[in-house]
Amino acid sequence: MRVAIIGTGLIGTSLGLALQEVHEVDEVVGYDRDTDRLTAALHRGGITVAALSATQAVVDADLVVLAVPAPAIAPVADEVAGALRAGAIVTDVASVKTAAVSTLQQALPDDVWLVGGHPMAGSHETGPEHASGELFVGATYLLTPTTHTDPQAYRTLHRLVAGIGARPMAVDPGDHDRLVAVISHLPQLAATTLMNLAADQAQRQHAGLLLLAAGGFRDATRVAASNPQLWLDICAENRAAIVTVLDDYAAQLAQLRATIAAADEERLRTVLMQAQQARRRLPRKAVGGGALVELLLPIPDRPGVLAEVTTSVGAVGVNIEDFSIDHAAEGGRGALRLIIAGAGAAATAAAALKERSYEVRERQL
Amino acid sequence: MRVAIIGTGLIGTSLGLALQEVHEVDEVVGYDRDTDRLTAALHRGGITVAALSATQAVVDADLVVLAVPAPAIAPVADEVAGALRAGAIVTDVASVKTAAVSTLQQALPDDVWLVGGHPMAGSHETGPEHASGELFVGATYLLTPTTHTDPQAYRTLHRLVAGIGARPMAVDPGDHDRLVAVISHLPQLAATTLMNLAADQAQRQHAGLLLLAAGGFRDATRVAASNPQLWLDICAENRAAIVTVLDDYAAQLAQLRATIAAADEERLRTVLMQAQQARRRLPRKAVGGGALVELLLPIPDRPGVLAEVTTSVGAVGVNIEDFSIDHAAEGGRGALRLIIAGAGAAATAAAALKERSYEVRERQL
Repeated sequence: MRVAIIGTGLIGTSLGLALQEVHEVDEVVGYDRDTDRLTAALHRGGITVAALSATQAVVDADLVVLAVPAPAIAPVADEVAGALRAGAIVTDVASVKTAAVSTLQQALPDDVWLVGGHPMAGSHETGPEHASGELFVGATYLLTPTTHTDPQAYRTLHRLVAGIGARPMAVDPGDHDRLVAVISHLPQLAATTLMNLAADQAQRQHAGLLLLAAGGFRDATRVAASNPQLWLDICAENRAAIVTVLDDYAAQLAQLRATIAAADEERLRTVLMQAQQARRRLPRKAVGGGALVELLLPIPDRPGVLAEVTTSVGAVGVNIEDFSIDHAAEGGRGALRLIIAGAGAAATAAAALKERSYEVRERQL
Repeated sequence: MRVAIIGTGLIGTSLGLALQEVHEVDEVVGYDRDTDRLTAALHRGGITVAALSATQAVVDADLVVLAVPAPAIAPVADEVAGALRAGAIVTDVASVKTAAVSTLQQALPDDVWLVGGHPMAGSHETGPEHASGELFVGATYLLTPTTHTDPQAYRTLHRLVAGIGARPMAVDPGDHDRLVAVISHLPQLAATTLMNLAADQAQRQHAGLLLLAAGGFRDATRVAASNPQLWLDICAENRAAIVTVLDDYAAQLAQLRATIAAADEERLRTVLMQAQQARRRLPRKAVGGGALVELLLPIPDRPGVLAEVTTSVGAVGVNIEDFSIDHAAEGGRGALRLIIAGAGAAATAAAALKERSYEVRERQL
């Protein structure tokens, strides 16, 4: 398998390093419009060949990873569209998916398979020199299948993502953007606001204020040091979901303010204890556990079934370890085999699928 | 010098360990109403003698540290008041100071010297078994002198605090409570709200949500795991300042929400960049630097001068390394010598004092 990576920053180069360890990957061709970054990726070993252009990189590639910033996705896709081979799989790594997936769907030819992706891994460092093949180990790697997604292309990408040690999870692009607004974009904007508030008050009221910053403040504001351009792009692409979640946050804060102002100790205790318990239960890494269970689903042969099944399983917090699609000889119906780790997780997934009227058979492997 | 520590949890035991390394301290007597905690503090070496009661512990003590939770300050102070020797110094470690200082002022006899304290150091761990004599090294240690504070008692405590490696900073009790509302209480309540919001949405909308929690979310919510009882006490004691700062935070968030909703990219860039710069400039530890400079101030012999001078210097973010008070033989006027590290810091401190009509002479040491 020949992989092309366009954009050899931290994520692109780390993916290149990780994919080279996967048995079925033979070659990783890279391209970056910044020659220094491309050379650094080659030196770091993240790519095996440096191409002279994005177009040259994608020729004959089986998998094309667009690891460029969100605003560059449209121009790069337009540029390479004509050079992609029929049957190539294209994925991206953008942190906001509705816009990226729809841009790519429009730009790419019909004989190329698109599966949007978003690895939930990163670093405060940027650039290929900080790349690591271990970056994705244990991280959730979101894939956004839609009704247009080819099941075999999805399966290939799912297998590669699992192969680099990440935990693939399927999610609808729109759901994705609402989820990351809560778990990634809101924490960033809350940290930015907290930092600015403290800095303002230090300047206006008490220059010693920031000398009092202990571990709690440092933790709560750490991401405020992130790259402003990245967050400008994210706010532009995920505006609606971010505004909604800021409203939810403001409403909860207003409730908390009222609870404290009213000295409602019982209510405040509940709020503090709920958060304490939720924080303690926060999963460390998305690791699977337990014996493998197979779920077998007879499925109708219509578009969108794969996206519906995989995102329904993701929505109940269950990872799919592997899956295969059997097509019945007579056509019209096939079967989907999902492999889930752990009897509890398999039962949760089966229940979610049955609720959507799928017939599900479980089998311990 | 004989030190008594009432309350041998993490802070009390750590103070005991640290103070034993200070030359002038001969003995650290400890008491805790929880016998196991008292025994553990003795085993940990944080106290040299375990007393049978708080009253027994304070007899003949030169310094009494009340390292008990805020609600226990009043009963413990009432209990020991009659046993304190004349001239003893009493301090506490409560995270909210207006209430603690006024409680102590009422409870303690007139011949005992009160100086409120708040070490800005701690740990996620609690209990004497996690105590460390290094806990305060480089940490800001707030002292809250008032018009009632005896200058020599303040000087002794200042010297001991510097002796354990902390950076003493003077602040008015009311200012203290407004500052910690910003730098400590708001981050806690923001983290609690963020964690509850995400947990709610995980439960109601997408069970996979918390699997997406990467470093940013983990950092931003870390303190949400703190002890609820501690935060109930803090919210009760610092209610007014906390409500005010929650209002300030809500107002800044509402502005940010409007900026994003209006797609005002220039304004958003400014907000993100200000926070990035402020976070990067956040002082790592309050360490002094540069040559020592002496500031000499002739001072009127009236109560409150020491509190005014030291808190004015703290308010411009400057630490006082050491100080001494010279009383003129004829009475009526004396002189205060402040030692400041670094010419820039000394100039800042001198300017702040001149603005309050003090006459200040600087001298390089």
